[in-house]
Amino acid sequence: MIAILKRETTPEQKAHLIDWLKHMNLDVHISDGDEFTVLGLIGDTTRVDMELLNSLEIVESVKRVSEPFKQANRKFHPDDTVVSIGDVKIGGGHFAMIAGPCSVESEEQIIEVAQAVKAAGADILRGGAFKPRTSPYAFQGLKGEGIRMLLEAKQATGLPIITEIMTTRSLDLFEDVDIIQVGARNMQNFDLLQELGKTHKPILLKRGLANTLQELLMSAEYIMSEGNENIILCERGIRTYEHYTRNTLDLSAIPVLHELTHLPVVIDPSHATGKASLVPSMAAAAAAADADGIMIEVHNNPSRALCDGAQSLTPEQFDQVNKKVQKIREAIR
Amino acid sequence: MIAILKRETTPEQKAHLIDWLKHMNLDVHISDGDEFTVLGLIGDTTRVDMELLNSLEIVESVKRVSEPFKQANRKFHPDDTVVSIGDVKIGGGHFAMIAGPCSVESEEQIIEVAQAVKAAGADILRGGAFKPRTSPYAFQGLKGEGIRMLLEAKQATGLPIITEIMTTRSLDLFEDVDIIQVGARNMQNFDLLQELGKTHKPILLKRGLANTLQELLMSAEYIMSEGNENIILCERGIRTYEHYTRNTLDLSAIPVLHELTHLPVVIDPSHATGKASLVPSMAAAAAAADADGIMIEVHNNPSRALCDGAQSLTPEQFDQVNKKVQKIREAIR
Amino acid sequence: MIAILKRETTPEQKAHLIDWLKHMNLDVHISDGDEFTVLGLIGDTTRVDMELLNSLEIVESVKRVSEPFKQANRKFHPDDTVVSIGDVKIGGGHFAMIAGPCSVESEEQIIEVAQAVKAAGADILRGGAFKPRTSPYAFQGLKGEGIRMLLEAKQATGLPIITEIMTTRSLDLFEDVDIIQVGARNMQNFDLLQELGKTHKPILLKRGLANTLQELLMSAEYIMSEGNENIILCERGIRTYEHYTRNTLDLSAIPVLHELTHLPVVIDPSHATGKASLVPSMAAAAAAADADGIMIEVHNNPSRALCDGAQSLTPEQFDQVNKKVQKIREAIR
Amino acid sequence: MIAILKRETTPEQKAHLIDWLKHMNLDVHISDGDEFTVLGLIGDTTRVDMELLNSLEIVESVKRVSEPFKQANRKFHPDDTVVSIGDVKIGGGHFAMIAGPCSVESEEQIIEVAQAVKAAGADILRGGAFKPRTSPYAFQGLKGEGIRMLLEAKQATGLPIITEIMTTRSLDLFEDVDIIQVGARNMQNFDLLQELGKTHKPILLKRGLANTLQELLMSAEYIMSEGNENIILCERGIRTYEHYTRNTLDLSAIPVLHELTHLPVVIDPSHATGKASLVPSMAAAAAAADADGIMIEVHNNPSRALCDGAQSLTPEQFDQVNKKVQKIREAIR
Repeated sequence: MIAILKRETTPEQKAHLIDWLKHMNLDVHISDGDEFTVLGLIGDTTRVDMELLNSLEIVESVKRVSEPFKQANRKFHPDDTVVSIGDVKIGGGHFAMIAGPCSVESEEQIIEVAQAVKAAGADILRGGAFKPRTSPYAFQGLKGEGIRMLLEAKQATGLPIITEIMTTRSLDLFEDVDIIQVGARNMQNFDLLQELGKTHKPILLKRGLANTLQELLMSAEYIMSEGNENIILCERGIRTYEHYTRNTLDLSAIPVLHELTHLPVVIDPSHATGKASLVPSMAAAAAAADADGIMIEVHNNPSRALCDGAQSLTPEQFDQVNKKVQKIREAIR
Repeated sequence: MIAILKRETTPEQKAHLIDWLKHMNLDVHISDGDEFTVLGLIGDTTRVDMELLNSLEIVESVKRVSEPFKQANRKFHPDDTVVSIGDVKIGGGHFAMIAGPCSVESEEQIIEVAQAVKAAGADILRGGAFKPRTSPYAFQGLKGEGIRMLLEAKQATGLPIITEIMTTRSLDLFEDVDIIQVGARNMQNFDLLQELGKTHKPILLKRGLANTLQELLMSAEYIMSEGNENIILCERGIRTYEHYTRNTLDLSAIPVLHELTHLPVVIDPSHATGKASLVPSMAAAAAAADADGIMIEVHNNPSRALCDGAQSLTPEQFDQVNKKVQKIREAIR
Repeated sequence: MIAILKRETTPEQKAHLIDWLKHMNLDVHISDGDEFTVLGLIGDTTRVDMELLNSLEIVESVKRVSEPFKQANRKFHPDDTVVSIGDVKIGGGHFAMIAGPCSVESEEQIIEVAQAVKAAGADILRGGAFKPRTSPYAFQGLKGEGIRMLLEAKQATGLPIITEIMTTRSLDLFEDVDIIQVGARNMQNFDLLQELGKTHKPILLKRGLANTLQELLMSAEYIMSEGNENIILCERGIRTYEHYTRNTLDLSAIPVLHELTHLPVVIDPSHATGKASLVPSMAAAAAAADADGIMIEVHNNPSRALCDGAQSLTPEQFDQVNKKVQKIREAIR
Repeated sequence: MIAILKRETTPEQKAHLIDWLKHMNLDVHISDGDEFTVLGLIGDTTRVDMELLNSLEIVESVKRVSEPFKQANRKFHPDDTVVSIGDVKIGGGHFAMIAGPCSVESEEQIIEVAQAVKAAGADILRGGAFKPRTSPYAFQGLKGEGIRMLLEAKQATGLPIITEIMTTRSLDLFEDVDIIQVGARNMQNFDLLQELGKTHKPILLKRGLANTLQELLMSAEYIMSEGNENIILCERGIRTYEHYTRNTLDLSAIPVLHELTHLPVVIDPSHATGKASLVPSMAAAAAAADADGIMIEVHNNPSRALCDGAQSLTPEQFDQVNKKVQKIREAIR
């Protein structure tokens, strides 16, 4: 970490700051110039509060040379992390297709969709039981009952399941869930992250609506620092001024995260775009950019298609997307 | 609520949709045109899932004529809500100045700052005990001990206190806290909001980093729908591409929220700008735009000024800001 | 176009508005409800100023059912536009790879790069002669001399050339240029667009830093409305809060634009990401999402590599990217 | 300027870079550490292309210690610039109220509005003759005829006039215009800026929709570097994800710009918010934050009020806003 001091810093202030930094077990390398003084901080700088340092009146600017995350950092862990969910693996060359409905609606529905997506090549079944909704008056999911139905679908098809958690208070209900999803709104719910770090469950951590990739990695670090290293990162679109798509899918997250971290990266084109017609090409693009997995919303209820989200594919459409994705994966090897 | 159907909608699809809407106890007023069909939905449309409706393949677009929030809505509650904290009142013409340090560091520090800001005219003392931090390795606050120190400072000065909660699991510790703050990162932690709705504590709800004003009001609605109407809204800057300031303070939130809701609106120029030099003019601007309160970071530790945030004012600076704010409030009456 | 009137609209105001709309040769279909009145406007609504209409006090909201662009609209022109540049074609299944240096630096440099990218499979040579720079003190390009050098490179290799125009005042210099590029900063320089509409040159129109896809199409419409239909749209990243990449590449622009318009879509991953290491995977993703072309920065000067942009690939890297792109294009057929 | 080199930089690369920097007449102060090398660049660093330097493979990061703008920089020109327009002054404690309609519609209209705003205390008359419009089919203004009408209104009232230029090709028409406005879409139309720099007209330069304050100052520098120092900066809202207001007014621009530059700062709350009901409080806030001027849209045509923008105030409303603004200005002295 490098701190540049303002020209008007007094020798006392400088000494005071250096003293404080050394107190944090850092070596301080001082370089005085006519126009500025540069302090090089050597040691475990992850504990240094960069914002605090930056905000000191005598500090012109602070620059990290090393990233503030350790356990998620590829520098200290060059090999790809492979997350295992039964026989399914994600990361390190292993690719998983995750599919299923937005919400679990009934046992019949979830089993039917599970069978359809399995037939079309899905590796993991998704389905929402606890639904974060902007409005307190909107349908909030079947909750515990929804998880029970997902487990029935798992039994019927053998597909492992992923579903979202919203509070530590419902953690018990997730005992048999294979992957616990942390939604975008909870990416910086630090208390939840720490509790999940105490489990050994695979966690799929979604990027927040307005969070940087570094913040995403810091949130992964919250989980890892408690002992759980089974983390899958998920890009699901960020909020921008463009409103033709629901969010803006940031596919550059794939190569950036692959550079910065060893954790696998999954793309969710359904929530990112909000439109079924855009999902196939964004899934293809994610595969071409070497994502470790793709998560797609699929429904299977022609008679009630009316009420299904326009962001969901039919099983037939999903089947075609999956075939294309697999062909692209072969083409880039 | 108005739904515009696509031209290619079949009579069966239309009938199917109307049926579904009537099931939700809505009256449906149908207007067929050559180019489109318009459905006017009359009744309690807050329960209608606008996103779902909008995502149907046959729906061109949906437009709310009435807002999706009820209890927070000025239309149904024209008079300003006045939140009372002991003798201090916020809203309905009552203005409160909230001041104190970013973090509680020691009993001595918080009492000293409390006395200083009281002397300078503050109405309420702020101070962080639980600190949400991007990094798991950064200082997370003194937690329960910090709340105890705030209560000491309250006793010493008579100032009511406000401090941030991060999880329902620490709710017991907040029993004697006067105002519970929900931070920007937790604005859509719906479980936390609902639990706070079951208390009768005044809640200061901060706008999320990338949340719309409507989403802020929906989060207030989450609290209110559980029975707690003592809500103070707080604008603290939104995330944009501009990086000279830490965030972009959206002062238009004041008149917009005053139009849409009866709840009081407080501005936090310290976190919004991240720079002490910008706080005085933004506090003045907030007062001129008729904010119901202003929350300012103040430190009082010249000997350790080195480590204080550049966004904090000294008590002397705060005193001047407060005087200016009061003069502006008189000027706009 | 549909306009929803507020409940409190008086009969006189309504009559006045309808009169005004009929004056614009629109049929007005009126639907009165208890809660609102809906006006359906039928006819050529591209001339209706939606912002103006929306801003009327009696108007609750306005919704376009048809898009505000006509000549660029796929509805009125279902077949893909194919832009021909000599033997090279873009659009309608024809794909072009555009490559070359950020700036033309010397005749030797541009000819060397041109030969290298041609050997690696490029179809078109890019190179900046007029460089839009944030600072008036930065290098602004070789200008007319740079165009002359590009033409030498064209003669040496047979590759058609593309280079950026910054003002109508230099239009004469572009007489022999094959494709004129309009940069992101000039996307809404309407005077420039109109003048380019009077030529018959192929125009590559880049999306502005904070412009919506609809605004991009309206800018294309400016050119087309003057008679020039040879337009290639280009996504080059939008400005967001994320600063790890220079901009955020919005690849969903490809399927969205293919739905809305018949004009070809080219992706520029070099400017979007600002980092060479991210270019290969973003080029692959663009190909998988069925872009009609990709534009990549390539340099060829190992001895001066020091001063080449980190967003440029070497000819060898470009060769590999091109091979991968071609394989992906085959895979998605 | 400080450049931090990566650890893996070879001695040859380092020597090569230092050589290149010295070629630009910079002194280079070298500080070698175990983990990094820091180069301090001393001299006229405004000519250094920071982006280029930053993009070199051996460079970890670059930090400007001094800003990249010179003539606009308060450090080199501590006194406020006062722009004089006849008897009206803006900056250095002088405040101007600018008012008038969005577009000039007729001689009668513009004279009537001019008389009304003059009576209410306006110092300068605004009115659009050339209108930048997203759609080529929308009304583009009365152009030269509109300027003629503005000059009639000036003669009738004595108010100096401000109106927008869109291309250098119409510069002749602006000979008698008092202040030439550069709109947000043209903030980085560098050719236009340079041509305006060759005139001696006061220029009101609006911040672009997605431009940083530093980019705004660099655009001012483009004008100043050609010899014209009569520049007024204008904040008119930036584009964010929030869509309740048309744009997000960034009032922190006032204190930030006052710190960085000596140029006066004007606020346009009408375009920023897009809603008349929000203009009075944002004008009050701008005055409290010590803006040097405020520009407000005012119409005066009750019989055609139907077609007037909802962002325009009536002369009566403007009169009240102006009174409040003046009271606030007194309160903050």
